[in-house]
Amino acid sequence: MKTLKVALLGCGNVGAQVARILLEDASVLADRAGAKLELTGIAVRNVATQRDGQIPAELFTTDSAALVDDADIVIELLGGLEPAGELIGRALSRGASVITGNKALLAARGAELSALAFANDAQLRYEAAVAGAIPILRPISDSLSGDRITKVMGIVNGTTNFILDAMDTTGAQFDDVLAEAQALGYAEADPTADVEGHDAAAKAAILASLAFHTDFALENVYCEGISKITAGDVAAAKDAGMVIKLLAIAERGENGIGVRVHPTLLPRTHPLAAVHGAFNAVFVEAENAGELMFYGRGAGGSPTASAVLGDTVAVARRVVSGGPLPAIATQQSVQVMDFAQAATSYAIGLRVSDEPGVLASIASIFATNGVSIEALRQTVNRDSAPAVAELRIVTHRSTESALSATVAAVAELAAVQEVISVLRVEGN
Amino acid sequence: MKTLKVALLGCGNVGAQVARILLEDASVLADRAGAKLELTGIAVRNVATQRDGQIPAELFTTDSAALVDDADIVIELLGGLEPAGELIGRALSRGASVITGNKALLAARGAELSALAFANDAQLRYEAAVAGAIPILRPISDSLSGDRITKVMGIVNGTTNFILDAMDTTGAQFDDVLAEAQALGYAEADPTADVEGHDAAAKAAILASLAFHTDFALENVYCEGISKITAGDVAAAKDAGMVIKLLAIAERGENGIGVRVHPTLLPRTHPLAAVHGAFNAVFVEAENAGELMFYGRGAGGSPTASAVLGDTVAVARRVVSGGPLPAIATQQSVQVMDFAQAATSYAIGLRVSDEPGVLASIASIFATNGVSIEALRQTVNRDSAPAVAELRIVTHRSTESALSATVAAVAELAAVQEVISVLRVEGN
Repeated sequence: MKTLKVALLGCGNVGAQVARILLEDASVLADRAGAKLELTGIAVRNVATQRDGQIPAELFTTDSAALVDDADIVIELLGGLEPAGELIGRALSRGASVITGNKALLAARGAELSALAFANDAQLRYEAAVAGAIPILRPISDSLSGDRITKVMGIVNGTTNFILDAMDTTGAQFDDVLAEAQALGYAEADPTADVEGHDAAAKAAILASLAFHTDFALENVYCEGISKITAGDVAAAKDAGMVIKLLAIAERGENGIGVRVHPTLLPRTHPLAAVHGAFNAVFVEAENAGELMFYGRGAGGSPTASAVLGDTVAVARRVVSGGPLPAIATQQSVQVMDFAQAATSYAIGLRVSDEPGVLASIASIFATNGVSIEALRQTVNRDSAPAVAELRIVTHRSTESALSATVAAVAELAAVQEVISVLRVEGN
Repeated sequence: MKTLKVALLGCGNVGAQVARILLEDASVLADRAGAKLELTGIAVRNVATQRDGQIPAELFTTDSAALVDDADIVIELLGGLEPAGELIGRALSRGASVITGNKALLAARGAELSALAFANDAQLRYEAAVAGAIPILRPISDSLSGDRITKVMGIVNGTTNFILDAMDTTGAQFDDVLAEAQALGYAEADPTADVEGHDAAAKAAILASLAFHTDFALENVYCEGISKITAGDVAAAKDAGMVIKLLAIAERGENGIGVRVHPTLLPRTHPLAAVHGAFNAVFVEAENAGELMFYGRGAGGSPTASAVLGDTVAVARRVVSGGPLPAIATQQSVQVMDFAQAATSYAIGLRVSDEPGVLASIASIFATNGVSIEALRQTVNRDSAPAVAELRIVTHRSTESALSATVAAVAELAAVQEVISVLRVEGN
């Protein structure tokens, strides 16, 4: 049996688990891969750092370049753009294959690195980069290769799902739940990348590129986070039989491919509504397959290591036996949907004076802008003086531009005291 | 670009959709497969049968053997053991690759046909055989190849899920819902294969073989259907926050691999509990990945065709470029878990006389047999004379043999009027 040299870059949470499994399960992995996978070294910044004693100390090295230059397979788990990008390029250029979970790098340079891999008859696989342990990239690019995907909607960030789920369960405010998530280790000290949707946006770009066989640039992803979601928004959603989730949405419409990340109202009966805590799930619609969903752990050392090792076995099998490279996601040029033309329904919350004619004025502005109202609910609070009413309006599908114009005009009305919230709705 | 000859055997619900997509989406499929997929003919029993006018009449033939002998890729959608088995053998023997959705044939002869494919450097793929459109076989055998699967639980029969879901929603009896399912076309005129669990058992054997890298024989699958489930069972489950689903369960335990199909109580919070109507879902537990679930349409022409074509593209890519064959599921011999040693919790419903000491006698029998009670609920009906009580007991995990002995002894008690139901519980 052939032996393949495996270099591991990084020994954090995921890397340590990958090393453990490579060492512990060597014979099972060899059976499945058709080759022995020999862990030749683990590149770290400081070999003296105290680590899990299970990994032989002599494997650690700071000379990542030398490790890469000697490897058949490189597993990159450093994260960030550099030196990860340079080391991956170095490996691919000499025909070594690469497994990575680096969504930031892939969102920024995925097409370029895929092309480099292809040019050198090397493989680049990255199942771990989106939704952790969930096999999603391979089903999208392989299992559905005889179908046409029309839409992908994913809960791909565990931190924000944990926060929104806790807000839904407890009724607490965003800041309080974020603090709790930080205390539990579900959120970083600087939570910006998660709560503002940047992490989900990188994953959305990767999903869109694979689903639509193209190269979708991160800068074309519309991105809006959850930091402005209030306990009031969550309670109003609950009243309406809905739940708020941060979704990464990629869809193919008449005007091209649109990719967006934003808080979204979902009916509680939707399969994605049942995804709790830090779990992830990706919902896929395809012309023939219909609706599919993939659910599992989106993060964590062992779950992410499972995805890395699944890729490693696949890569090893092809190194041993040859065969086709993974489909390249850059075959078709992409027409990016103008976000102003993206169409969804909206739920709009307004605080208005409880006086005659207000409803008529508001309805008339919606009609003028061609935004059709699907449902409207008014709650009057007569205890305040003068009396105020809260209006919750759900629209039929409308474009962003028509909706923005409508909301701006409504906000100008003297009787409208506040636009409480504007949220997009899916799955209704 | 190379052209591969594709022979289609069968033109029923799924076959007609496969033909349509092969013809309509030829250029997209060619791009993805790296070869033109030329539909050379469709073998049917009678070419004169009236069919969808979209398929050119000259493609139909009754000479399936000649069609197979001229093909690079054979798509078998005849169903049943013969002539499907003979034609697949004929194709594989000459090195042609085969895609099939024939779960009955695979459950009976899957290992033999896989070995035949391997011996002839041909491919045998069958994603459509389990859970229709849901990519489940490839994720299990490829994506999770770096992990160890410990348990698979699937809702893999749409007919029974439709029936149980309707019983849960409406409170109706089994016979009435079955009649409705038959009227709607969700159940066959002879529903035995679905409602008695035979269809699910075949899929369970296929799932177990792939998940545990072995060849699990259909005859070793324990199989119990849903025809004895009453509206009372469903209502009692609902009261306890549970739902009854027909599950195909494959698990690796200390005593080997156990595979069983039976009605199962699940907590309503379990991801499988939210699978409604005729949808399918497969829940997977792996050592590192943790809990995963795959959800989608389990039947229907277009959804199943999507799975068939995903396999066809994969097969074509390897025919063009070479490479490793799909992992063979027969590498390890299997130790079959004795069903008497399978351990689950149980929910037991008893009708007993409401008299002093009954509870003590029952509890003592459970204790004697080493079956530990987790929860017990008693509802007394004082309107009947003499008064009767209904007992609902949930046990901790226990073996089938201990449980059977317990139930038999309890049924002997003079105060026990009826054993209303004995149901296994998962996910609690």
